[in-house]
Amino acid sequence: MSGPAPSPRSADPSAGRLSVVGLGPGGRQWRTPEVSAVLAAATDLVGYETYLAMVDERPAGQLRHPSDNREEGARAAGALDLAAAGHEVAMISSGDPGVFAMASAVMEQLDRPDRPASWDGVEVVVCPGITAAQAAAARVGAPLGHDYATISLSDNLKPWSVIEARLDAAAGADFVLALYNPASRRRPRQLGWALEIIGRHRAASTPVVVARDVGRPAEAIGIVTLATVDLEQVDMRTVLIVGSSTTSLVASTGGRPQVYTPRRYPAVVTG
Amino acid sequence: MSGPAPSPRSADPSAGRLSVVGLGPGGRQWRTPEVSAVLAAATDLVGYETYLAMVDERPAGQLRHPSDNREEGARAAGALDLAAAGHEVAMISSGDPGVFAMASAVMEQLDRPDRPASWDGVEVVVCPGITAAQAAAARVGAPLGHDYATISLSDNLKPWSVIEARLDAAAGADFVLALYNPASRRRPRQLGWALEIIGRHRAASTPVVVARDVGRPAEAIGIVTLATVDLEQVDMRTVLIVGSSTTSLVASTGGRPQVYTPRRYPAVVTG
Repeated sequence: MSGPAPSPRSADPSAGRLSVVGLGPGGRQWRTPEVSAVLAAATDLVGYETYLAMVDERPAGQLRHPSDNREEGARAAGALDLAAAGHEVAMISSGDPGVFAMASAVMEQLDRPDRPASWDGVEVVVCPGITAAQAAAARVGAPLGHDYATISLSDNLKPWSVIEARLDAAAGADFVLALYNPASRRRPRQLGWALEIIGRHRAASTPVVVARDVGRPAEAIGIVTLATVDLEQVDMRTVLIVGSSTTSLVASTGGRPQVYTPRRYPAVVTG
Repeated sequence: MSGPAPSPRSADPSAGRLSVVGLGPGGRQWRTPEVSAVLAAATDLVGYETYLAMVDERPAGQLRHPSDNREEGARAAGALDLAAAGHEVAMISSGDPGVFAMASAVMEQLDRPDRPASWDGVEVVVCPGITAAQAAAARVGAPLGHDYATISLSDNLKPWSVIEARLDAAAGADFVLALYNPASRRRPRQLGWALEIIGRHRAASTPVVVARDVGRPAEAIGIVTLATVDLEQVDMRTVLIVGSSTTSLVASTGGRPQVYTPRRYPAVVTG
């Protein structure tokens, strides 16, 4: 990563700031004013190239540092180096940077035993964003209206046994489940395994929301059941919401079906 | 609830729209452009009076229908009636209306067996917002960086036994826990009980984020431990985030402590 000579800030002329921002799920209508302001003021934008492409080009004076999606540690370290050199750096995530995204990757770098002394003056700020699960839920009603668990199915950084135990515990306690990173070309089978575990605790008719590219031009959201999820249609850009035992369909006023989880819960656990 | 004569919309002159919107946790920097546009276009604002006060007065032509915080069913029905009469209604939640808030209350009304036929033409839209837990997490680092469970401790609408079972399952499977509605004047003891259950699975030194009035002038956020949560400082305007076994403190570059949950998880579950 490289950039122009340091542009000093007012507060501390020797170091800059690293803002870790969330664009939300894609649509501009869900990007917070805080994030828009940070993007406008940044001297440097760092991030996975697909997310960088979602930010308008500024006429002049802003450098872009696109990276591959799998170099998160190196990307975070590079962004801290840029900020240490006095730059105003925005590191870009989709959704919320605090949820399965870059904020933890930055904190992991700050927690390194061999953390460079040059990072000590950098101000690190996290700016939250709407997550894909929240946006998907809004599109179909209110499936996250009651207790829910958010789980990444990626076993790149955690053992599958941990994911299995968490799915079993959360499904057994009748949480609604928001499933992130459900599948990729390298991990085609995890979602099927996950739905099998959930199926030990839930009826086959349980509503499942399958949401791909929420808030983007290719948005596709369907309401299916636990028995009818089409694994072929699920990839890394998909989030799933699996209902609890109380999650219900309702014929919405516009004719399309909607799905919600009531605030009230019966006295006997059925999950 | 009452209002002016119906003001017809272009698409369907006989019915209006009900938009259920989330203001986010308080600060204007976290309110989405979608929500701001809906608030500007609405003929009627419906909501708990504390949340209505967070929306700027419009010079003319917008009616406000404040209500008590506990009349959610009646409020939702009244808002649907207004929309059925042709009004452009915005129903206001803080945070995300889809998370322990008004979107489910509206869906519950739509699911009533005796649902009035007059509601059939109403378009219902949900507009997501940043939740208190997301904003609190952003302020202190990235505690929600890995699998987490979101649980309301209110037993107004669900039995305490269900809450206990969910806390036990989620803590046992080593989820990070975001705890909503931790206490109120009528429910002063639930949080203590909840922390006792969590303590069966977590070390006393586990980091806990206690966040009150996030994004508002009175914002107060502290990082304590499971053993040192001050129950007296917790009320309905507080959200707590209890770490998993891997959640760690890091000395941030600015000197203040931050807290994060790593993306990587060890092969042996220690929770």
